[in-house]
Amino acid sequence: MTTLDQPHHDGSELYVERGTPRLGDVVPVRVRVPASRRERAVHLRVVRDGEPRFVAARLERSDEHERWYVADVPVHNPVTPYRFLLDEPGGYRWLDGRGLHDRDVTDAADFRLSVHSPAPRWLDDAVVYQVFPDRFARSSGHEGPPQGDLPGWAIPAAWSDEPVAAGRGVAQQLFGGDLRGVEQRLDHLQRLGVDTVYLTPVFPARSNHRYDATTFEHVDPLLGGDAALASLSAAVHARGMRLVGDLTTNHTGAGHEWFERARADRSSPEAQFYYWTDDEPGYVGWLEHASLPKLNYGAPGLTERMVTGQGAVAERWLRPPFDLDGWRIDVANMTGRYRDDDHAHAVARALRSRMHGINPDAALVAEHFHDAAADLVVGGWHVNMNYSAFTRPAWTWLVEPGSTLPFLGMPVPVPRRGGASMVATMRDFDSTVPWSVTRHQWNLLGSHDTARIRTVVGSREAVEVAATLLFTYPGTPVVFAGDEGGLTGVNGEHARVPMPWSEVDAGGGAHWDAATFAVYRRLAELRRSSRALREGGLRWVLAEDDAVGFLRETSDERVLVVLTRAAWPGARLTGLAARSSDLLHGATPLTHDATATHVPATPGPAAHVWRLS
Amino acid sequence: MTTLDQPHHDGSELYVERGTPRLGDVVPVRVRVPASRRERAVHLRVVRDGEPRFVAARLERSDEHERWYVADVPVHNPVTPYRFLLDEPGGYRWLDGRGLHDRDVTDAADFRLSVHSPAPRWLDDAVVYQVFPDRFARSSGHEGPPQGDLPGWAIPAAWSDEPVAAGRGVAQQLFGGDLRGVEQRLDHLQRLGVDTVYLTPVFPARSNHRYDATTFEHVDPLLGGDAALASLSAAVHARGMRLVGDLTTNHTGAGHEWFERARADRSSPEAQFYYWTDDEPGYVGWLEHASLPKLNYGAPGLTERMVTGQGAVAERWLRPPFDLDGWRIDVANMTGRYRDDDHAHAVARALRSRMHGINPDAALVAEHFHDAAADLVVGGWHVNMNYSAFTRPAWTWLVEPGSTLPFLGMPVPVPRRGGASMVATMRDFDSTVPWSVTRHQWNLLGSHDTARIRTVVGSREAVEVAATLLFTYPGTPVVFAGDEGGLTGVNGEHARVPMPWSEVDAGGGAHWDAATFAVYRRLAELRRSSRALREGGLRWVLAEDDAVGFLRETSDERVLVVLTRAAWPGARLTGLAARSSDLLHGATPLTHDATATHVPATPGPAAHVWRLS
Repeated sequence: MTTLDQPHHDGSELYVERGTPRLGDVVPVRVRVPASRRERAVHLRVVRDGEPRFVAARLERSDEHERWYVADVPVHNPVTPYRFLLDEPGGYRWLDGRGLHDRDVTDAADFRLSVHSPAPRWLDDAVVYQVFPDRFARSSGHEGPPQGDLPGWAIPAAWSDEPVAAGRGVAQQLFGGDLRGVEQRLDHLQRLGVDTVYLTPVFPARSNHRYDATTFEHVDPLLGGDAALASLSAAVHARGMRLVGDLTTNHTGAGHEWFERARADRSSPEAQFYYWTDDEPGYVGWLEHASLPKLNYGAPGLTERMVTGQGAVAERWLRPPFDLDGWRIDVANMTGRYRDDDHAHAVARALRSRMHGINPDAALVAEHFHDAAADLVVGGWHVNMNYSAFTRPAWTWLVEPGSTLPFLGMPVPVPRRGGASMVATMRDFDSTVPWSVTRHQWNLLGSHDTARIRTVVGSREAVEVAATLLFTYPGTPVVFAGDEGGLTGVNGEHARVPMPWSEVDAGGGAHWDAATFAVYRRLAELRRSSRALREGGLRWVLAEDDAVGFLRETSDERVLVVLTRAAWPGARLTGLAARSSDLLHGATPLTHDATATHVPATPGPAAHVWRLS
Repeated sequence: MTTLDQPHHDGSELYVERGTPRLGDVVPVRVRVPASRRERAVHLRVVRDGEPRFVAARLERSDEHERWYVADVPVHNPVTPYRFLLDEPGGYRWLDGRGLHDRDVTDAADFRLSVHSPAPRWLDDAVVYQVFPDRFARSSGHEGPPQGDLPGWAIPAAWSDEPVAAGRGVAQQLFGGDLRGVEQRLDHLQRLGVDTVYLTPVFPARSNHRYDATTFEHVDPLLGGDAALASLSAAVHARGMRLVGDLTTNHTGAGHEWFERARADRSSPEAQFYYWTDDEPGYVGWLEHASLPKLNYGAPGLTERMVTGQGAVAERWLRPPFDLDGWRIDVANMTGRYRDDDHAHAVARALRSRMHGINPDAALVAEHFHDAAADLVVGGWHVNMNYSAFTRPAWTWLVEPGSTLPFLGMPVPVPRRGGASMVATMRDFDSTVPWSVTRHQWNLLGSHDTARIRTVVGSREAVEVAATLLFTYPGTPVVFAGDEGGLTGVNGEHARVPMPWSEVDAGGGAHWDAATFAVYRRLAELRRSSRALREGGLRWVLAEDDAVGFLRETSDERVLVVLTRAAWPGARLTGLAARSSDLLHGATPLTHDATATHVPATPGPAAHVWRLS
């Protein structure tokens, strides 16, 4: 199945001029229609103040392959939805973000122009590396269980111990990674080709994951304290890299100083920061966890303390000497939401505005595993950790046959489904947000909250396919530290594997796969070398059970990506209008004749990237 | 194609107990799974505070035909989304309001429980009749052009004149219908079987449609003034019927007293009610019409004057002696929306709350031709004029082949598409609102803003099919006065045909088709006689090019509706579990054997309704 016979539009430069429009601007948008179609005319449908209007699109140019139409979108509202109508024999068709429809559809998948500034420009080119501080590196080099003055909750673990996957010890097993350890290993990151470090929380807590902060005022002494973060930040920035932190706006730890004050004095300002109940444990916790009391943004002082006030949490870590380049917001989807309270958009907008005031280049990334559509168009979170439109559909296509791994929270295993299923799911979720969001979404193959991609897909070859998707897809590639060496893990907790530095340094070992590292490194380099892979549009051209393919296109470059998960007989693509090509990644060249491009067969999982000309 | 092999859930009494839940309630919901499926388990997915959770559904009962599962939905948020997961071989399936999916889907079509009170109970059983006052009836009986003291804009028309379809005279042609004329003809309405009169605007204006009110303080003297409305209201209520008015919250007329004060004195409170611009004509008009200046709900005094204040517009017409039973809100989709202003939900909620305070049985109906999903779940408008989920898909299935009629505002004709297209479109739009809305939506086959259904579908037989859909579908049937006699019209303006009373009284004529009237009357009676048709769920069972069919089911009644638009060979339905049936409407009985029910062939457009047992 190819979709090269379908008209196409997305928000990339071939179709919409770059730049963020302002209210009142008029933005020309373009749509390409394959020559094989028989449209009599193309119309643009734009929704203004809740009411659609139509304008005829103008034929701008055409050749033997396709026709290009252009029409003007008045940017009348902060988010302006639009789509195209093709007046074709047999009845009009709609083109929206999900594709072509031969019946009427809701506005849910309309393309959108947004006046909200997109994520900062540096995210255009970023490759992010997620570090879970307890498991990345110890500055001491020492490999036994951590010693010295450890908190009472900690269960010391040797660096080579296996993380506990469930039950007792999951949150208590302390491997003793620290921030100077991260700093010492920045060479590894640069060798890999990443330029942004995303650190999961560094505040003191009662767990190894530190999502239960006891204060937001200083860095955990176990990690080296404030000085270690300042030093890491300086070292990161000295290399031209960026550093992003992790903040729990949804809750604090039960040991948090605000919560202790709140419990000690119900007339304190902090007492209003939480939701108190008559049931055990007397307050609302995140997913009923007593260790994570939920914050109430109806409290007058909370937003000020967290976001807007002088020295607020969100502010101070963005200022010297810490200079964080942004926040990843934990449980962003639930932040500010409880029963009939819904302060989520207000909190997100306040955060973005405050961060922008401190550093216009600060990034604000939401954690939302599910349907984030309503939260990504209101001028709050810049982008999302893109589990729903990337991770999960990719897993569902690439998961090892017979796997019993579930996706986060699901009561059933991830099924193995065909390529058309993956593509339709990605288009579905992508279509709910403007392209200005899509192109910076934080795509990931896994995180500290999921199984490892190596465990999910079952082979080095399949990891290469997954990683090629990650590095060639629109959005920001995010690598969970260790994925680049093929580390394994059956769930999020089990996946928090300490980096096996002795194996890394030795060029491989029982856990570390140097060949996978080489693939990741090559892919990061490939992405750096191709503007189309970073900024191009996304046009799907293949969606078969065992093969998917898409084009990334800018005004000056066209790249074709074809991924297979199993032996596949190849395909003949007409309508590509390519006369020659360069092999950028993979084993086999494309071939071209007068009427078609021939995509080579593969003997098993394989990833190919070609530059077309 | 049948969907009887698919699991089913909707918000009707078989699946969700009746009544509006309150925050904190736990509501058991049921899903039926055909015996032919092979699910290992069924899970419920509920979104709480933005985060989905799963609970296992319990098998409640089963027989040789199907299994019923039940699971508890905690009503944790004002609108609580949920759907079902079927753990089946080959990978789980999702069941949401659009149907069954073999891939992951967004939350857009989740089922929903809402704590917002639904439309008043009387809408459960209502059949609404839309009256355009200038064209319904003259109390004088006189049939020539209106005489006497006519406004300067009016172009007097004889009762038998054809309405101008476009251009000069469209809004000025004055036929001279009045409210006492409506009152004199209430017998006709009762004969037809309607119980609710919806009057398009009755305020003085500078047009025959009166959507450009010059005041909201009294009834147009051309219609008989306040006394005539009070008299009509008394007569309507004396018959146990209801009366709904029509209000333009989006704009006033340029001749409105508020606008005149605003223009005369830019420091007046009224000056803040409008949007002023530097361009001609100096203010924002609805769709740029200078005659319809748009209201600005950012103005402190406007909501008070229109909605909340003592004697506010929305209030006074609901009080004696006018006693309106509700408002239909013109251009509800644009009300309060302009550029970066969006007061739409605030206005809708304020209106509902105020109306409820005056009369808990008042109905609030929005006009929104397009995608009203976001506006129907916030506790504002009760329901919508259901063009998108009913009128337009029905037209697209039934439109006469070769018709060149467009749907409102579309630049292309309505295409004729197959039944699967209609069903998918209806499910798509239905799925965006809770069942508590669906079951009261104002369904219509046409209005003063569209062509007449008789003109759209081209034959009496096809009108019968359309009308059967109207009277058997979930929601409130709304009949545009004259449709029941087969009146014609090529667009909204042209469709505003004066009722040909001499023909009606004579039992038919060149314009009035008594056979169509008899069909409408029979269908209204059929609906009254069947609780399933008024309150039952909606389960589609057939969706072929030329035939569609669905079940309406309550705990005590099952009704099967099959509609065909052309000759059709009939169908064999398995899984209906029906042993016998009564023919309620149409020509041919169903037949049943041990394994299936046989739906009879039809020689052309036909409508059948059977009660199953």
